[in-house]
Amino acid sequence: MRFLDRVQAAMEKNNTLLCVGLDPSPERFPASIQGMEKPILEFNKAIIDATADLICCYKPQAAYYHACGAEDQLAMTIDYIRTQYPAIPVILDSKRGDIGSTASQYAIEAFERYQADAVTVNPYMGIDTVEPFSSYADKGTVILCRTSNPGAAAIQNLPVQQANGESAMLYEVIARMCQEQWNGHNNILLVVGATNPTELKRIREITGDMTFLVPGLGAQGGDVEATVKNGLNSEGRGIIANSSRGIIYASGGDDFAEAARNAAIELRDQVNRYR
Amino acid sequence: MRFLDRVQAAMEKNNTLLCVGLDPSPERFPASIQGMEKPILEFNKAIIDATADLICCYKPQAAYYHACGAEDQLAMTIDYIRTQYPAIPVILDSKRGDIGSTASQYAIEAFERYQADAVTVNPYMGIDTVEPFSSYADKGTVILCRTSNPGAAAIQNLPVQQANGESAMLYEVIARMCQEQWNGHNNILLVVGATNPTELKRIREITGDMTFLVPGLGAQGGDVEATVKNGLNSEGRGIIANSSRGIIYASGGDDFAEAARNAAIELRDQVNRYR
Repeated sequence: MRFLDRVQAAMEKNNTLLCVGLDPSPERFPASIQGMEKPILEFNKAIIDATADLICCYKPQAAYYHACGAEDQLAMTIDYIRTQYPAIPVILDSKRGDIGSTASQYAIEAFERYQADAVTVNPYMGIDTVEPFSSYADKGTVILCRTSNPGAAAIQNLPVQQANGESAMLYEVIARMCQEQWNGHNNILLVVGATNPTELKRIREITGDMTFLVPGLGAQGGDVEATVKNGLNSEGRGIIANSSRGIIYASGGDDFAEAARNAAIELRDQVNRYR
Repeated sequence: MRFLDRVQAAMEKNNTLLCVGLDPSPERFPASIQGMEKPILEFNKAIIDATADLICCYKPQAAYYHACGAEDQLAMTIDYIRTQYPAIPVILDSKRGDIGSTASQYAIEAFERYQADAVTVNPYMGIDTVEPFSSYADKGTVILCRTSNPGAAAIQNLPVQQANGESAMLYEVIARMCQEQWNGHNNILLVVGATNPTELKRIREITGDMTFLVPGLGAQGGDVEATVKNGLNSEGRGIIANSSRGIIYASGGDDFAEAARNAAIELRDQVNRYR
């Protein structure tokens, strides 16, 4: 089953657009977890068990695992999801991007080593650096378009002169390339931050029913109503609404999993209210 | 000692601008190495021992280590260089880029976990995603500007309307931002592919004496004379000329280290001929 079909099936089954980001910072875990042999894995398993019926995918952020040498716990986390909750796909958020021969290695990392169902990719180096990912037709390739961080606009909103003489912002050009040129395998998604609802609306206009990964809800302060209303596609889906820290660190105590569940229910319901 | 000072000292000591890329593909190793317990580390050590007096830095490509779960051998390779050849700095080529809090984790990965001296970074997400790297003032942050792959131009050569009304290509805008706005710690370098000598010349005009990491010599076919003549700064340095596969796979037999040494001597001398 293809990644986008799996996401949509999970969206329908769980009546949700929510994605939980698994960005583990061991120093924020309760002491009881910190003392375990594989604290990241145990933390993630508790979060996953508490939220798997509320979400449409998980998104582990590779940097947090690389920083502390926990690649094994990343692999075990994804394996846990695959075996315990096989209906829930996994996006590896690693924002890779390199020349073709190297990108092929990153695709092996994401799709074969970790068995992720999708991976985030940076578009700056062009189509030949995206194709090694997107050529895995059953997997998803999630391309950075308009990101949620404060400094993004200085690059992504640069005005570009197009061949037809009109001006468009760089993120619009990227969105259009992804829609018209890069999506030969029908498995491209875009990253569009919840902190920019105007841009989100514009990218929806450009890309038809393409699915967006929308980070920036929760800790980064994105507006839920504006995000949902501007982001939905014609099928009432089309956005994967991610929250990481706002859910997984809803409590720093031993009730962290229950608190994560409550925070996920609240955000799922908030999102559904505007669908 | 700061990264750029270390690179320049190695350039002078070894009379070289050459950098060797450590991109290990175990299937290309001779059988005698493939059978070892840590084949990547052993291959790298042989290459390093054969070339350390010919080069100004090493550049391991993270993807090759991630693809096969060899992070431990990447760490041991860098540690080997640090202990055996302390005058030679290491650029971790991982092309990271993410929102600030995540970029900080990638900076920890590069500079603390692996103890690399510099890291490659993608500019698409903006200054707040670069600063977590560049704030390590003694380390180098090497920003993608005009890359060596065939598809790069479709993005990096997009015409951007600047505030002064003039048009510039995206890579020129990135180069100028790096020179004028992002280099507060004087530790920014740029990636400029050897496959684009015209762009290389233009970026030299924009950035004064800034140092470039220039991949694409060797296997990717970059022209040495044009690269050196267009890339040198006013001090007769300013380019770190990288070759990976053209050197480390000069022979697939048991003489691979000797062949790598000969290929490195040849490319070092070719580069020096045009300085």
